[in-house]
Amino acid sequence: MIPDHVPERRYAVFAEGRFESAKTAHGLLRYGRDEVACVIDSTLAGRKVLEVAPDLRRDAPIVGTLEEALAYSPTSLLVGIAPPGGRLPEEWRRSIAEAAEARLEIVSGLHQRLAPEFPEARVWDVREPPEDVPLFSGEGFAVGPKVALTVGTSSAIGKMTATLEIERAARERSVSTAFAATGQTGIVISGWGICVDAVVSDFIAGAAEQLVLEAAKAEPDLILVEGQGSLGHPAYSGVTLGLLHGSCADCLILCADASDEEIMAGVPRPAVPRAARLYEEVAALVKPAPVVAVSVNTRGLDDHEAKDLVARVSDETGLPAADPIRGSAAPILDAVLRTPKTSATRR
Amino acid sequence: MIPDHVPERRYAVFAEGRFESAKTAHGLLRYGRDEVACVIDSTLAGRKVLEVAPDLRRDAPIVGTLEEALAYSPTSLLVGIAPPGGRLPEEWRRSIAEAAEARLEIVSGLHQRLAPEFPEARVWDVREPPEDVPLFSGEGFAVGPKVALTVGTSSAIGKMTATLEIERAARERSVSTAFAATGQTGIVISGWGICVDAVVSDFIAGAAEQLVLEAAKAEPDLILVEGQGSLGHPAYSGVTLGLLHGSCADCLILCADASDEEIMAGVPRPAVPRAARLYEEVAALVKPAPVVAVSVNTRGLDDHEAKDLVARVSDETGLPAADPIRGSAAPILDAVLRTPKTSATRR
Repeated sequence: MIPDHVPERRYAVFAEGRFESAKTAHGLLRYGRDEVACVIDSTLAGRKVLEVAPDLRRDAPIVGTLEEALAYSPTSLLVGIAPPGGRLPEEWRRSIAEAAEARLEIVSGLHQRLAPEFPEARVWDVREPPEDVPLFSGEGFAVGPKVALTVGTSSAIGKMTATLEIERAARERSVSTAFAATGQTGIVISGWGICVDAVVSDFIAGAAEQLVLEAAKAEPDLILVEGQGSLGHPAYSGVTLGLLHGSCADCLILCADASDEEIMAGVPRPAVPRAARLYEEVAALVKPAPVVAVSVNTRGLDDHEAKDLVARVSDETGLPAADPIRGSAAPILDAVLRTPKTSATRR
Repeated sequence: MIPDHVPERRYAVFAEGRFESAKTAHGLLRYGRDEVACVIDSTLAGRKVLEVAPDLRRDAPIVGTLEEALAYSPTSLLVGIAPPGGRLPEEWRRSIAEAAEARLEIVSGLHQRLAPEFPEARVWDVREPPEDVPLFSGEGFAVGPKVALTVGTSSAIGKMTATLEIERAARERSVSTAFAATGQTGIVISGWGICVDAVVSDFIAGAAEQLVLEAAKAEPDLILVEGQGSLGHPAYSGVTLGLLHGSCADCLILCADASDEEIMAGVPRPAVPRAARLYEEVAALVKPAPVVAVSVNTRGLDDHEAKDLVARVSDETGLPAADPIRGSAAPILDAVLRTPKTSATRR
């Protein structure tokens, strides 16, 4: 699954009308292994990415049409936004068909699969799981590298970002890593992975284990697994726990934020120490995996509030805490590196 | 999903060469709502079900061929055993095709779907989930009847049997119940349900919630949800937790046994009190659901050992414990009935 040589993709990013909130497009620009030739959004045509979204770290021109995009010699068109109402609007369909006619690869993170819609095109439906995912076997217990997994007090809390920032901190320290992507944006960023929530339930843990076995082949110092959902999110907790047990994690990084918004349907976010304790207890049924650090998302706070929150979380949990965006993921990486690999629970 | 009138199925049970270990066939005979006309197993032809398996509570003739089976006027052929090697053997295929030609409905609990194999036949692939399972919404928090879910210290520990025995005890007490089946045998027994481990991961909890909403329509006193897997089974824990949160259970019945065999790959069974505590803690992230009783599977023990085990489990946990097969599920039902309905965790 890990491409031996990262394919030399050069993306035109299709984000018509919604570049500013296009999560997959932003992820690719900020963290992606591949080149970005240009972004297509007619509402922003003529501007540049960093003018519109300065935190994306990488610039690219924004153009208004596919025809203009072709001038930047892309190899692939990324459909990185979800269509309103769930169905492809006619004007998007036309752009995608034109891209296919121009022999671009179509890369899509949509729930709706595009391969059947564009049977003549080369399509990579990122959410489509491999056909041969096996059941969890326990083989993952024996992987050589240390495995760290991000988990959260809620979903959509920045687990992917934390994972990628820890990877960046590791790269700066010459610690070799493999990032195991489990959601569509992570997969587009890294060029491989399995969208675990698209796998049939019986195979969630098997998919997570396959990712770790695959990541281990490159013999990195550290495997960083992107977490999904939350143990306390009633809609997604099954995916979260399947990933926790299936990844055979040696340690966990708990992602938290300042919000006290409900998770959904009135269900509250658990307090950080309670979440940490429960993740550890549930993990230990299969394999001990201590929470070694808290990654704090301080979005929306001023610098003073952010610092206070990080200090409070560290105090409440007795763990190193850091905001990897506003600060650095180095303290989290340190905590991961000094934690020994664990063995599976054995009778 | 609950048939308004239970369809008047009259099954010929296809169990060629393996009736004695055919779990789905046994479940249907022991607990099924529908009639069983006969069993097909040429290795036992001429004998009767209760001679071969006296604990099945219901007799039926065993015949050697489909042709003989047709003399008993079945409406449906149940394929209740899995083919060796995963592919349908040619002689099974011939029997199923003959049944289809005789206009029998084909009912299959196989992983492999039979509808595409026999396009002319009426086929009910029991494991095939509905196409329109929604995400979990929280609507299940508001169902009127009390919801009880069976959970286990391991998988394959008798959760379905415990659930059905509690239902039987309730029937004897004129407590109205709805059994929500979540696996193929339970679905064949009750004539409806969703095989939750066959649903795409994102929709496990949504499927569990739909089952409870559907079961509530009949306004029973009690909804009994068949559990799956175990919180400590690394291959299936995701399904277990999705079902726990998605079913919006008010209380749990923990299923345990005498075994100290590993769950898989060296992972030990958790002690009963530890399992009880963890199920409660993880449930309470979303909605409190106390473990109100332990259902003890004493298979393989003598009467004295069985009594000791039940007493020890009750003592260790401080909960009512009973073996619903060797004894009665009445003490478990009592515990369920005296437990109040809980409210969802709210902030």
